[in-house]
Amino acid sequence: MGEGRIVTAALLVIGDEILSGRTKDRNTGTIAEHLTDIGIRLKEVRVVADDEGEIVAAVNALRSRYDYVFTTGGIGPTHDDITADSIAKAFGVAIGVDPRAEKLLSEHYARRQVELTPARLRMARIPDGALLIPNAISGAPGFRIANVIVMAGVPDIMRAMLEAVTPELDTGVKLLSVTIRVERPESEIADVFLAHQRRYRDVAMGSYPSIRNGHFESELVLRGSDPARLAEAAETLKAALKL
Amino acid sequence: MGEGRIVTAALLVIGDEILSGRTKDRNTGTIAEHLTDIGIRLKEVRVVADDEGEIVAAVNALRSRYDYVFTTGGIGPTHDDITADSIAKAFGVAIGVDPRAEKLLSEHYARRQVELTPARLRMARIPDGALLIPNAISGAPGFRIANVIVMAGVPDIMRAMLEAVTPELDTGVKLLSVTIRVERPESEIADVFLAHQRRYRDVAMGSYPSIRNGHFESELVLRGSDPARLAEAAETLKAALKL
Repeated sequence: MGEGRIVTAALLVIGDEILSGRTKDRNTGTIAEHLTDIGIRLKEVRVVADDEGEIVAAVNALRSRYDYVFTTGGIGPTHDDITADSIAKAFGVAIGVDPRAEKLLSEHYARRQVELTPARLRMARIPDGALLIPNAISGAPGFRIANVIVMAGVPDIMRAMLEAVTPELDTGVKLLSVTIRVERPESEIADVFLAHQRRYRDVAMGSYPSIRNGHFESELVLRGSDPARLAEAAETLKAALKL
Repeated sequence: MGEGRIVTAALLVIGDEILSGRTKDRNTGTIAEHLTDIGIRLKEVRVVADDEGEIVAAVNALRSRYDYVFTTGGIGPTHDDITADSIAKAFGVAIGVDPRAEKLLSEHYARRQVELTPARLRMARIPDGALLIPNAISGAPGFRIANVIVMAGVPDIMRAMLEAVTPELDTGVKLLSVTIRVERPESEIADVFLAHQRRYRDVAMGSYPSIRNGHFESELVLRGSDPARLAEAAETLKAALKL
C-alpha cells in the first residue's frame, strides 16, 4: 500500500454513558492519533446509544462509506452489551458462542482458577465469519467482520486490541502536519494565512484558537502528504508572519 | 415543558483537528453533562471534517431527527472557518454581514481600541433569519437558526454561549441516575443485574467496567425519570448484591 492511495476510516462509539456525560470518552483521541500515525484518515466519528436500531443504522451507513469502521464499547458480559448482536444484525449473519472465543475465555479463566459461567460465556458470542482480535488484558476477544473492527470500551483493553489489529490493516499515504504557534489572535493573521493557503493549494491549512493567560493565541496547522512541500509552506508562512 | 415530554438533541463537532487527534475534544463531555442536567437528552454525537458537504449533510440529517442540534467549531475569522456558510447552505438561506453582529463586534473592538478589519468582520457573517447568541469573552457571536444552535469551539467561549442560550431552550423530563460502584468484575454480577433489569423494566440499567489497581470494577448505572422508583430499584439492587 502507501503509494498515493488514501485509506479512510470512521469510528463508532457505542455508549449511553458518553451521551449522558457521566463518562468522558478517551478512546476517540487515542484512535484518531493512532490512525493518523499509521496512514489511515479518520473522517467521521459517531457516538450512539446502546440501542440495536441505532447501532445497526450507524454501522451500515459507515461501513459502506469508509475503508474501515472501528467501534468501541458494548462487548462485555452484561445485558446492556449488545454490540456483537447488533453487528451480526447489520451484516445479516448469525451469531452464537464461537468455539475459538470460548477456548480463549476458558484458558483465560482457567489460569485464574475462575469458573467460566454463562455470563462470561456471553463474551464468546461472535458473529459468523468474523476474525477474532486477541485481548491480552481480560481474555474476551474483539473481532473483525469485513471492514468493521469491534473493540472494547475500556481504554486499556481498547488500546491492546487496536495494537493487535494494526498489522492487518491496509494503510495509505500518511497525512503529515506542521504546527506553528503564534502569540496573536486569529483575526490578526487571517489575511496572511488566507493568502498563503491560496499560494499552497495542496497543503491544507487550519487555524485553532486558544486562550492562554487571558490572551488569544493561534495554532496554525499545515497538513499534506509531501514532506518537502509541507516544509516549504511552513517556512514561507513563518517568514510571512515575521516569526 | 417538563410534564412527560422527552426533549432530544444531537451534537455536531466540526473540526479536522479532532479527527487528526491533534486536539482532544473537551466540549462533548461538557455539553452532554449540561443537557442531562437541564432535561434534554443527547442522543447522538457526530464529528465531521471542515468540509461544507459533510457539514451540510450532517446538519440536515440531525435537525430533522432531533429537537435540537448543537454545533461547535468553525466560526472564527480564518478561511477554514466555514460553519456559518455551511449552515446557511443547509437551510437554503442567504448569508452576509449581519448588522447586529457587526455592532457587537465593533463595540467589542472599540473597547479594546482594536480595528474592526475585514478578517474580523468575517465573524459577523450570520445566516438570514438567525438569532444571535452573545459571546461575553471574545465578542463574535454564535447564532441559532430554527432548532440548530451554532457555538464556538474554544471551550471557554462554548460554555459562555451554552449558558447564554439555555434559558431559551425547551426542556423535558430529566433523566435521573444512580451509580452503584461494585468492586467485582462485571461477569460476577451479570446474572443478578439482568434479573434486576427484568424486574424494573422502566429503569434503564447499564454496567461500565473499569480497571483500578489492576482489578476490574463495575459501575452500575440506573437511569429513570421517577425518583422514587429509581431509589427503590437502586436499594433492592444493592441488597441483591449484598452491598
